[in-house]
Amino acid sequence: MNVPGPSRWAATPAHVSDSPGGLAPGFRASGVACGLKPSGATDLALLHCDATGPVASAARFTRSGVLAAPVLLCQESCQLDGLRAVVANAGNANAATGPAGLHAAARTQQAAAEALGLVPAQVAVASTGVIGVPLDTECITGALPAAVAALSGDDEPFAQAIRTTDAWVKRAALDVELPSGRVRLSAQAKGAGMISPGFATLLCFVQTDAAMSAETAELLLGVCVKRTFERISVDGQLSTNDTVLLMAGGASGVHVAPESEDELRLGEALDALLRRLALLVVADGEGARRIARVVVSGGHEDAVQRTARTVANSPLVKSALHGGDPNWGRIAQAVGKALPGTAPLAFDVWIEDVKVCAAGTALAHDQRALAAAVSGPEVEYAVALPGAGHEAELFFSDLSHEYVTINAEYTT
Amino acid sequence: MNVPGPSRWAATPAHVSDSPGGLAPGFRASGVACGLKPSGATDLALLHCDATGPVASAARFTRSGVLAAPVLLCQESCQLDGLRAVVANAGNANAATGPAGLHAAARTQQAAAEALGLVPAQVAVASTGVIGVPLDTECITGALPAAVAALSGDDEPFAQAIRTTDAWVKRAALDVELPSGRVRLSAQAKGAGMISPGFATLLCFVQTDAAMSAETAELLLGVCVKRTFERISVDGQLSTNDTVLLMAGGASGVHVAPESEDELRLGEALDALLRRLALLVVADGEGARRIARVVVSGGHEDAVQRTARTVANSPLVKSALHGGDPNWGRIAQAVGKALPGTAPLAFDVWIEDVKVCAAGTALAHDQRALAAAVSGPEVEYAVALPGAGHEAELFFSDLSHEYVTINAEYTT
Repeated sequence: MNVPGPSRWAATPAHVSDSPGGLAPGFRASGVACGLKPSGATDLALLHCDATGPVASAARFTRSGVLAAPVLLCQESCQLDGLRAVVANAGNANAATGPAGLHAAARTQQAAAEALGLVPAQVAVASTGVIGVPLDTECITGALPAAVAALSGDDEPFAQAIRTTDAWVKRAALDVELPSGRVRLSAQAKGAGMISPGFATLLCFVQTDAAMSAETAELLLGVCVKRTFERISVDGQLSTNDTVLLMAGGASGVHVAPESEDELRLGEALDALLRRLALLVVADGEGARRIARVVVSGGHEDAVQRTARTVANSPLVKSALHGGDPNWGRIAQAVGKALPGTAPLAFDVWIEDVKVCAAGTALAHDQRALAAAVSGPEVEYAVALPGAGHEAELFFSDLSHEYVTINAEYTT
Repeated sequence: MNVPGPSRWAATPAHVSDSPGGLAPGFRASGVACGLKPSGATDLALLHCDATGPVASAARFTRSGVLAAPVLLCQESCQLDGLRAVVANAGNANAATGPAGLHAAARTQQAAAEALGLVPAQVAVASTGVIGVPLDTECITGALPAAVAALSGDDEPFAQAIRTTDAWVKRAALDVELPSGRVRLSAQAKGAGMISPGFATLLCFVQTDAAMSAETAELLLGVCVKRTFERISVDGQLSTNDTVLLMAGGASGVHVAPESEDELRLGEALDALLRRLALLVVADGEGARRIARVVVSGGHEDAVQRTARTVANSPLVKSALHGGDPNWGRIAQAVGKALPGTAPLAFDVWIEDVKVCAAGTALAHDQRALAAAVSGPEVEYAVALPGAGHEAELFFSDLSHEYVTINAEYTT
């Protein structure tokens, strides 16, 4: 499966360009095999910021009521505004593993800190993989020296090592022209299933050589995650392990001050970066053939949000998307489910700018032209509820045979 | 695909037995072809109660915000406590069809009333099929005389004619020994996709030759629908057309008085009848290979209900069920999604009486024995949340390749 080309839904601002340079200066990363993936593929990822000056960071985690041990550890024992390293493993989520799982996460953190000359609270831990299986830390601590030795400015091995069912590596690097100078943003992500418009919804690590306060990092990450990773859904499910980290090392010497033009422009660049990665995650939705955007407008914020999520998570809408079936009755069904007790509801539906329903009533349209329009790699739906003033967008993947196959045989 | 055998989850009370007699006395039914199904299969169903004395009836409808025209018509223009006939079509849902759709439903109702010598308000109208396509009433009114001529005590043609993607006819008839005498309950249902634990979730028509007040019919249907059709899910979707009707014609001469032993016993029989049909609907969930029950207990009603529904509607849980994969991490994921912000959550999980998780932590268990236990036609999951006093059960089907195939090509 090839990495999809640029999406029409991910514009790049004029002051931002793809960076040929890879990782943001001041960061090094690696990925090695430690034996957690039965395939023998790389599964231990290490990231280190070797800045000598002050650093800043910010984090977002899943809201699940069943939090994996590394998430609990990060929330309880990390200095989340001053992280200098990340140790991540794939192949085992270290979730629903109880006190032994917490101990395993802490041992991993401590070993990585020792290997890098840091204190444990400066090292974030992340895991992804099967839930409910004890994590063997021997293999992790045993492979850490190799991971430290392999640290380099190339983040491809790191991005490889955090993959699970991902069909392709997800990473991006952007050069950003700020009024005060040029900085870089780089990021690595993994995510294909168990993706929902929740708080974070995947693993994603972002680095920049800009300097900023922890408050600025917190503000930028919070706003951009809300607009990107919280607006995607593969299957409406919520991971126990979702973690997004932004680390600013300051190697560029460009300081991004609060409420400055620099902050605004860097925020636009971070938004573009995370949107690009979010769309890659949706496009890699397990078995996905095509992706869609639904835009819902109307007079009530809650109704607009609820309708967008119900459309995006409907297995009927997603199956029709998979089949290239312009069956907008599935959209009508989802709208009705999202807003019980509101009938008769005067809603409009468009598919790829073809209006198929007005005030709740079917409109005659060119069915052949519509069928052609829904056969491409990206399909856009719009729903207008009564009223105006609120709008919600969500990106989602189709529901495929491969999704069933992947998840029918995940552990067997 | 064969009709499944009796479910372990559907017990038959001692005073109830399968009736060899078919339709409850006093009712006649038919099914004919009127041309709505492209296949030419029967698609027009008629049911008539020819009791000369008083009748009683009760109805439940979908809560969707997008109500089909026949549902709106029934709610606005029918004497729902005194129905004497039903005219139902398959092949077109007459939903999202606006004023023309309402007119088509009213014309259908009027034509059926004329053909049967009733007033329109005594005739319920129901439709099922594609949403958003204008309903041609010419073919319905043209076929009504044949439907009237074909009325008989055999409800098989009626049950055939209301099928859409149903793999088999769904009907049942029970003889019920009440303290005051023997009565019969008969019912016909359709439903396979777009099935959710909503208000009604399908078409189902129930007849009895017991005599009762409309209040008693309302009470019995309300309680039994809550315990049966509201506890099933194929795909978490909500139809625009769901309709459940109970009609009591009184031909047996047995009067079921309020708060009597007769009422209690008839209620038990109706519960058994609807539970049997509800399980048939789940087992016929589009493409289903096996069905499951999840029972969630705990100290908070809302948490218990939300968790049961989140497990039942999780595409990850349903894919694992399909594949016979005892991956209880999918259950843990669903519990966490249902109860955000509650970590660390001390929940227990059992699969077929094998405890796999205690207080949120994985338990060692015999994985081979568990894999064998989840390979049968019915799988039982139990989740215990903290506390006690509340319990919720839900029945659901797996997520299959066939579900995707059926719904990827529904209109194309």
